[in-house]
Amino acid sequence: MSNISEFTTNRLSVYLRCLDQLEASGVRAVSSKTLAEDFGLNAAQIRKDLAHFGELGVRGVGYYVKDLRRQLQHILGLDCGLTVAIMGAGNLGLALADYHGFKQEGFRVAALFDNLREKVGTRSRNGILIYDIRELKRVAKRENIAIAIIAVPIRSAQTVVDKVVLSGIKAILNFSPGSLRVPEDVKMKNVDLTVSLESLSFYLARSDRGEEE
Amino acid sequence: MSNISEFTTNRLSVYLRCLDQLEASGVRAVSSKTLAEDFGLNAAQIRKDLAHFGELGVRGVGYYVKDLRRQLQHILGLDCGLTVAIMGAGNLGLALADYHGFKQEGFRVAALFDNLREKVGTRSRNGILIYDIRELKRVAKRENIAIAIIAVPIRSAQTVVDKVVLSGIKAILNFSPGSLRVPEDVKMKNVDLTVSLESLSFYLARSDRGEEE
Repeated sequence: MSNISEFTTNRLSVYLRCLDQLEASGVRAVSSKTLAEDFGLNAAQIRKDLAHFGELGVRGVGYYVKDLRRQLQHILGLDCGLTVAIMGAGNLGLALADYHGFKQEGFRVAALFDNLREKVGTRSRNGILIYDIRELKRVAKRENIAIAIIAVPIRSAQTVVDKVVLSGIKAILNFSPGSLRVPEDVKMKNVDLTVSLESLSFYLARSDRGEEE
Repeated sequence: MSNISEFTTNRLSVYLRCLDQLEASGVRAVSSKTLAEDFGLNAAQIRKDLAHFGELGVRGVGYYVKDLRRQLQHILGLDCGLTVAIMGAGNLGLALADYHGFKQEGFRVAALFDNLREKVGTRSRNGILIYDIRELKRVAKRENIAIAIIAVPIRSAQTVVDKVVLSGIKAILNFSPGSLRVPEDVKMKNVDLTVSLESLSFYLARSDRGEEE
């Protein structure tokens, strides 16, 4: 397990999403080839990625959907019911607090934090309470918050990250652009929403140049 | 260029982001090895990905940062100044309309669309106008909109996607969960924000199990 890159864990998440769909459609077993064909993935890459974690497949069958799904959830730590806090109750923070997919995958958003007095004490549409950011340490401990999501404007991002680190939270998902500093024992992942737009842009550029898929 | 996967174009976007940083720090040339080390990437993968597009590197030098950046922008179609419309002026739509990164990478958000009368005619914080969704076709043509972002609740997502397709837009970025149908000549990309959370969850699970990086 020592050399699992972020690209690999991202792909594991993608595989899990595909397995969710297969299980919902009642598929019991799937080969890497079929998985690749159905979801536009790479079969050799799937086998290579899964081989990191031991013998997950069955010769002549491929993978049992339910089993592989459970194993991936375990590998990704999703069977622990991790608790999330969102820093910043602006449009992005409120959108993330009510984001359907988090709950579906076993994450629990426990709290929003902001420093605007008129927001503190109110709730997101789905009922997540907005706390004063000065309460972060206390609430983080009480709710056992594992992951903080940064959804504040760029100018206050570093200050907020520093408060998160001081509260003892060890994993940060950052939606704020620009580079933020965290100590070595804290894992930060930056989300860049432009990446997905650029992939579409590539497709459009290729169509314009008259190239075919 | 015939077999460029979405994983590859996503990685090209990541490389572009790294080059942005290198250029901002005044770095003139970089090898795939240094690029990989500095940003936690895979050097062999970088060389393989870039080799799809011809000889972008220079023997003994690596890549000239400015040149490679320009070439990647061209490959990704970012030098065309693509125009984007956002469907849904809820929290997510408003957050995306004002998302700093889009503008930075050469995308222009031209319009928001909603069907709530009290929202139509108002603007996002950064001044993007909210139109009635019935005006989509007209505005899409006038503004030459290339990409539509779907940020509406799941129950209205397919109806909105159908309207986008009818308006002639050929690329869709979908933030709504669930699977939506588009005709073959329309490219749709689904964004799943849980993927990034799961990568952090994997890190936390591994720490708990006492494994080291």
